[in-house]
Amino acid sequence: MKIDVLNKIKGGLIVSCQALEGEALHGSSIMSKMAIAARDGGAVGIRANSVKDIKAIKKVVDLPVIGIIKKTYPNSERFITPTLKEIKQLLDTDVEIIAMDATLRKQIDSISLKEKVDYIHAANKLVMADISTLEEGIEADKIGFDLISTTLSGYTKYSNQNQGPDIKLLSELIKKTNTPIIAEGKIFLEKDLKNVLQEKPFAIVIGSAITRPKLITKHYNSIIENFK
Amino acid sequence: MKIDVLNKIKGGLIVSCQALEGEALHGSSIMSKMAIAARDGGAVGIRANSVKDIKAIKKVVDLPVIGIIKKTYPNSERFITPTLKEIKQLLDTDVEIIAMDATLRKQIDSISLKEKVDYIHAANKLVMADISTLEEGIEADKIGFDLISTTLSGYTKYSNQNQGPDIKLLSELIKKTNTPIIAEGKIFLEKDLKNVLQEKPFAIVIGSAITRPKLITKHYNSIIENFK
Repeated sequence: MKIDVLNKIKGGLIVSCQALEGEALHGSSIMSKMAIAARDGGAVGIRANSVKDIKAIKKVVDLPVIGIIKKTYPNSERFITPTLKEIKQLLDTDVEIIAMDATLRKQIDSISLKEKVDYIHAANKLVMADISTLEEGIEADKIGFDLISTTLSGYTKYSNQNQGPDIKLLSELIKKTNTPIIAEGKIFLEKDLKNVLQEKPFAIVIGSAITRPKLITKHYNSIIENFK
Repeated sequence: MKIDVLNKIKGGLIVSCQALEGEALHGSSIMSKMAIAARDGGAVGIRANSVKDIKAIKKVVDLPVIGIIKKTYPNSERFITPTLKEIKQLLDTDVEIIAMDATLRKQIDSISLKEKVDYIHAANKLVMADISTLEEGIEADKIGFDLISTTLSGYTKYSNQNQGPDIKLLSELIKKTNTPIIAEGKIFLEKDLKNVLQEKPFAIVIGSAITRPKLITKHYNSIIENFK
């Protein structure tokens, strides 16, 4: 199972299909169509948020899905599959991979990363560490995550507040761990993607630049405005 | 009315929100949400295809809309609002601007471009010429179109089969006509947009690069594949 899923995504483009509440394209039906478009464009996997979206996507697209549940809790900055409760919800879907906050911040439910990883493995699913620093990546590698992703760099207070993808983190993770490393987060421009490719990550996740037309419009609009 | 509409779009980004039958995102409800996303991202206008899509978009977005109806007829290569029939259908909507094929190819309905332009003007709407060559643009200027767009360059057999936008055509149209010129067609990469901006067009239309996730995925995927 693990080898099979990893082989399917190896070297490819995973498209993150997310529209949160309040976004124009929010809704499982639209996200499932977005996933079809991504598949038709050559995506090797989909990253999706919420049980509803994942179920809708799994019905129509036969690609490995990285499932997350974004949820905020009081007094914590964790928001990507932050507790065992969200993990259990994701285990009720057909996702191949569960991604979760693997930062070293205090656990909301006092259940350690290692216990969560073991719980997911016991259910025969892969687990991806969304991390923001090298230290977190090295810890994730030790704990036994199947994949480590640079997702959270720039999204924790103490990580690099870079504009584009965190190439340094990506490069060091690849050198210093034995886990497949996913390049994810802030890959928006062609040059971002090219910079990331130089490091030869295991796979690449792109989201907003493909599936968030508001942000794409804003990007082109800013080029026009800057030209005036 | 004319001045008012032109002022609203001047110097801005018009987002083409189209998903034809067979595309994953096809459907008026989705296209209207796409238009909301475009507006929220700073679009000054929307280009849309079909009465259904236009009506759905007009209900939710208060921006000038360039309406077209794509329809193919036997023995003709015209497909953008090709006959008076489609013009009449568009006049039943609230579009501010009707765009039509303004090439010099034989008319399907034997009604001249001039007659069509006059018909639209009599209904107090603006009319945009979608052209593919300088000759067609100069003719559109003479006939009295309110706007001329480079839309069809590369999409008629006899026009430049360029990969990116037809900068030469854009530049010559701006020099040789007195009609506001819209840069449209094949603006996909950042450098395409920057090249177009150098010519100072009246406004810019971008479609697939914003609203066709399949083609955007394909684009990023090709960068990844070329890197291997």
